[in-house]
Amino acid sequence: MATVAIVYHSGYGHTKAQAEAVQRGAASVAGTTASLLTSDEASKDLSALDPADCIIFGCPTYMGGPSAQFKQFIDAAGNIWLSQGWKDKLAAGFTNSGGPSGDKLATLSQLWMNAMQHSMLWVSQGFLPGADGTGGTDRELNRLSSYGGAMAQSPHGSTAPLPADLASAERFGRRVAEVTVRWVKGKGA
Amino acid sequence: MATVAIVYHSGYGHTKAQAEAVQRGAASVAGTTASLLTSDEASKDLSALDPADCIIFGCPTYMGGPSAQFKQFIDAAGNIWLSQGWKDKLAAGFTNSGGPSGDKLATLSQLWMNAMQHSMLWVSQGFLPGADGTGGTDRELNRLSSYGGAMAQSPHGSTAPLPADLASAERFGRRVAEVTVRWVKGKGA
Amino acid sequence: MATVAIVYHSGYGHTKAQAEAVQRGAASVAGTTASLLTSDEASKDLSALDPADCIIFGCPTYMGGPSAQFKQFIDAAGNIWLSQGWKDKLAAGFTNSGGPSGDKLATLSQLWMNAMQHSMLWVSQGFLPGADGTGGTDRELNRLSSYGGAMAQSPHGSTAPLPADLASAERFGRRVAEVTVRWVKGKGA
Amino acid sequence: MATVAIVYHSGYGHTKAQAEAVQRGAASVAGTTASLLTSDEASKDLSALDPADCIIFGCPTYMGGPSAQFKQFIDAAGNIWLSQGWKDKLAAGFTNSGGPSGDKLATLSQLWMNAMQHSMLWVSQGFLPGADGTGGTDRELNRLSSYGGAMAQSPHGSTAPLPADLASAERFGRRVAEVTVRWVKGKGA
Repeated sequence: MATVAIVYHSGYGHTKAQAEAVQRGAASVAGTTASLLTSDEASKDLSALDPADCIIFGCPTYMGGPSAQFKQFIDAAGNIWLSQGWKDKLAAGFTNSGGPSGDKLATLSQLWMNAMQHSMLWVSQGFLPGADGTGGTDRELNRLSSYGGAMAQSPHGSTAPLPADLASAERFGRRVAEVTVRWVKGKGA
Repeated sequence: MATVAIVYHSGYGHTKAQAEAVQRGAASVAGTTASLLTSDEASKDLSALDPADCIIFGCPTYMGGPSAQFKQFIDAAGNIWLSQGWKDKLAAGFTNSGGPSGDKLATLSQLWMNAMQHSMLWVSQGFLPGADGTGGTDRELNRLSSYGGAMAQSPHGSTAPLPADLASAERFGRRVAEVTVRWVKGKGA
Repeated sequence: MATVAIVYHSGYGHTKAQAEAVQRGAASVAGTTASLLTSDEASKDLSALDPADCIIFGCPTYMGGPSAQFKQFIDAAGNIWLSQGWKDKLAAGFTNSGGPSGDKLATLSQLWMNAMQHSMLWVSQGFLPGADGTGGTDRELNRLSSYGGAMAQSPHGSTAPLPADLASAERFGRRVAEVTVRWVKGKGA
Repeated sequence: MATVAIVYHSGYGHTKAQAEAVQRGAASVAGTTASLLTSDEASKDLSALDPADCIIFGCPTYMGGPSAQFKQFIDAAGNIWLSQGWKDKLAAGFTNSGGPSGDKLATLSQLWMNAMQHSMLWVSQGFLPGADGTGGTDRELNRLSSYGGAMAQSPHGSTAPLPADLASAERFGRRVAEVTVRWVKGKGA
């Protein structure tokens, strides 16, 4: 059984919708459980992440980086870093902001950097723009052309990311869970 | 008159010592005032930064990025971003952590990214390792070989950054102030 | 007189069109000369960049970073780095690729990093998405929401970046030249 | 059987010594073959990397980024990207330069970015400074405090990286190979 935990912060609900799409995707993979926690909840009980084989980190991009609220969670997990308690767990990331680029890559880089400090392995976004990676065709998948993790855009005035970006988030969740299943099998073998 | 404001967060006093060294350097430049504010103070009264020709941002590197406390300040200044109130101010950055590299560059990159969102100009660290840039010789200046901003190392158990890194911080403060003087002159001309 | 040099590499002509737009914008600023050089030309005669008050670096994003051809120019200028011959020149950057994000920020970060090693000052992109910064309105300016430099997208099959991105490049060239004029004045003052 | 390929560029032999240390470490893991290729060799026959379960990328840091020679290899592999031929291979990275920091992290970030474009998984450096991760003690291991990959410093005038950094490179090679063994097992299971 592969255990995926998704820890996120959402300021106004956009990133929450993205996180839920990631969860749907992950939960759709046979032999996987996918739980959703806010970064606040996770900070209060970091041990909830102990059983996770993979932690997916997600937050809005504010001012070219992870939201301060999410960074509080990252810093709260500094004690786990000291004992390298998350070593060899898988990690992945996603982020949302108003524009197409909007320096979202800087947020993904920060999420990667944190995972590196924890000695985790980082799972890529995993599919080219305009391909769903299963032989089907969805020209809008990964339309933002992101590679280090999943990106979503919520234009000014919207209440959620654009549909194509939610579909990409779901596909991303599935991809990360599939990789996690293999990683868990490798341990047992 | 060139006005330099140094905004910093310090968890245990190490980065505070670095910030004070930056201030000493900046204040040593003729025609410059250099003020020191914690990021908490600055968040509570962002208008204190209005007169600044240059804002120098500084914080510890926690888990491969700016401390959450400093990110709170960055996010609090999001309203200023909306009106681009800091446009064409100069910006620069410094950071401290326990190891020689310790992903401090990721923090400087984040500070740069934030300054870019504000449409500021970013001032480089400004001198090669082993050179004080004035024709003198100090082989320990910029011993960590940083370029995007000033780095300091505070080894485990220390109460302040290493002396060479404090000297580098002071030289860095001087360099940024010198650049600011020129930038202010250009406006008046 | 402010002297701006634009050094670029273009694989198939897209980034060349972007570079020409940057040049048009820079040349439109009173008291500015703006020259265009390929990175190949610049590598063969680096002294051509001596008189520049500002160097704008531009290249396509290949595989998440500057094209190898442009990196050859960067590395060729390593000798100048040794003597810090470009110290206190202004720098800025632009890049083009096929998708909206496409890791173009990673290229801008690399161009920034190189400028930092040269002890230059980095000029931000300078205007929010949907604003032309002059009181006019152009909702498509900086539609990709880039801050560290100018981004352009050339969708698969196109022969040039999208018109809005060329307009953004031109506005960016103007912005960088305006800043350069001030910087030059500050020296003379 | 786990197959690890190390592709590197070395300008003056320093990074070659680091690459050989990584290979020694990888080859020491039971059930692993570890081959060493220059980026030139790999560019000429990219199919040599087909059987690799893990590709470790290494190059010097020149002007704050991967050497142009190594970027040529990265760009040459762009055709493989188009068909996502390296998807789900593991990836890791190392770099060498003259100073302790020297913007080596910017090179590791670029190597990561390239791996992301290929939809690979990125293996972290994997051990804290001052710990060998096996219950033994080596206070000099990872003395530079790097997390995203392995760093080595070759001070001016030296012919190879410092001994502690070569030891770290070897330990890093071992760590990456151990992870690869698990990853290969997971596929077969």
